[in-house]
Amino acid sequence: MGKLLVVGSVALDTVRTPFGEASEVLGGSAAYFATAASYFTTVDLIAVVGEDFPDQHLKFLKSRGIDLTGLERRKGDTFRWKGEYSYQLNEARTLDTRPNVFETFRPSIPDRYRSPAMLFLGNIDPELQLDVLRQVRRPLLVACDTMNYWIDRKREALWRVLEQVDALIINDGEARALGGQPNLVQVARDILTKGPKHLIIKRGEHGVLLFNHKQTFGAPAFPLEQVRDPTGAGDTFAGGFMGYLAATGNLSEASLRQAIIFGSVMASFTVEAFSLDRLRVLDYKEIEARFREFKRLTHFEDLS
Amino acid sequence: MGKLLVVGSVALDTVRTPFGEASEVLGGSAAYFATAASYFTTVDLIAVVGEDFPDQHLKFLKSRGIDLTGLERRKGDTFRWKGEYSYQLNEARTLDTRPNVFETFRPSIPDRYRSPAMLFLGNIDPELQLDVLRQVRRPLLVACDTMNYWIDRKREALWRVLEQVDALIINDGEARALGGQPNLVQVARDILTKGPKHLIIKRGEHGVLLFNHKQTFGAPAFPLEQVRDPTGAGDTFAGGFMGYLAATGNLSEASLRQAIIFGSVMASFTVEAFSLDRLRVLDYKEIEARFREFKRLTHFEDLS
Repeated sequence: MGKLLVVGSVALDTVRTPFGEASEVLGGSAAYFATAASYFTTVDLIAVVGEDFPDQHLKFLKSRGIDLTGLERRKGDTFRWKGEYSYQLNEARTLDTRPNVFETFRPSIPDRYRSPAMLFLGNIDPELQLDVLRQVRRPLLVACDTMNYWIDRKREALWRVLEQVDALIINDGEARALGGQPNLVQVARDILTKGPKHLIIKRGEHGVLLFNHKQTFGAPAFPLEQVRDPTGAGDTFAGGFMGYLAATGNLSEASLRQAIIFGSVMASFTVEAFSLDRLRVLDYKEIEARFREFKRLTHFEDLS
Repeated sequence: MGKLLVVGSVALDTVRTPFGEASEVLGGSAAYFATAASYFTTVDLIAVVGEDFPDQHLKFLKSRGIDLTGLERRKGDTFRWKGEYSYQLNEARTLDTRPNVFETFRPSIPDRYRSPAMLFLGNIDPELQLDVLRQVRRPLLVACDTMNYWIDRKREALWRVLEQVDALIINDGEARALGGQPNLVQVARDILTKGPKHLIIKRGEHGVLLFNHKQTFGAPAFPLEQVRDPTGAGDTFAGGFMGYLAATGNLSEASLRQAIIFGSVMASFTVEAFSLDRLRVLDYKEIEARFREFKRLTHFEDLS
């Protein structure tokens, strides 16, 4: 298989949770996604950072084999996000967002990136997502993320994106906002009729659901004794999911299900520490071991 | 295997949800539990109703093969509960509770009930749960439910119950209140150290977790297109779970996992209609079919 391309944000996060805090640490959807996916395949990254972006983070991303040709370095400051979590750990309270150089981000795809095997459009303005789609040769699989901000403000552009992508990966609150009703099964049917073939709904500590025209698949989240920082869990999930699919090139239903589990495994590691700290020291053997634990966690015998 | 004994409430519920309302319909923990369990085994029921309790409900419970020798009929009115649900459908808002004859309920176990194979102590005062335990010969499996009201007000008596039961079946909010912390894995470890061998945490639309010293098992809820009334889902779950275990007498880990799925299947039917209306017309073949759908919903291939 060819490469996996991700377009999204690279940021410096300041995060406080009941279990500690971290200041000016590596974050952003593309950083989480690419790092998670790098355990499975090679990744090309498109994002923008400012002059203040620390070299150590570039070094880390490169050490994961991530191609940074598409990481623009521009005059100004890097995207800053500041947030905190309560004991529920389900949703961040944003204390401050400073898009800085990200505000005028216009993804420009280097020539060598233009035929990706798979493409992930991180949570950015749907107009920019459309712009990226115009610049690449049709990949085998395109997935995208979005958020309530775009669902509220750019619904039309977002639907144009959704008509062109194969998979939408969003959380349950976003799914309900997009579908305009509380029942997720009805939401899924509505979204699948109008847009992507696959809808993946992330529910944080409650696991994940995959809907498509053929099947529904549900998996719980891996029960963890210590969740220190949920930041980036969703993008890490997407990175594990697409990284595995890109590595195998197999889009069968069995493969999609395994990819969902790999995504859940990667997310379960990410939340064990702040920023990307857990992934920095993660070994592929640990990923396989936790996949097998997931199997033991969810297995039951069918009726004879 | 012998019989399954349940002690709990039989009530007349008035419920409003975004999908309709039902007035003075059959409800109560023992009614939901016994009806669900009756699909798997024979059930003895202990509860109290007033003079106003409609004969049609007695007829229905008898038609399910439930032994009502232990259903006391007393002067006064039957337990009334009135509640409503928002679109979230996760938690009921109680509008009115009138315990009536239930207020002075003192479970007295008929002789023929005193050697149950398995026992379920529905959500009643822990002092009464202890009283029941004193009156029966030790069953193969005892499970109990409780609620925040007792966790707050009768914590000591509740822990005395928990030292004597094999399984505690509660929802996630109750588990966190009992364990005194937000992380369910830590809560589980704490509860299992001090009390029952098995902790089953019901999470409504988010599924269920089983913790014991050997294993953790997690299953999503069955994704439903139409949830009309969640009342009784938890007790129906417990009824399916214990009904299956009582029918087989098998307490192996594989059997416990299948029992969790049977419980989830029964709960998924209950919430499709108000009161016990879906269970009234339910066929065992539908239960098996949905069990198999559950298997398809959650199955993925392990790594080779």
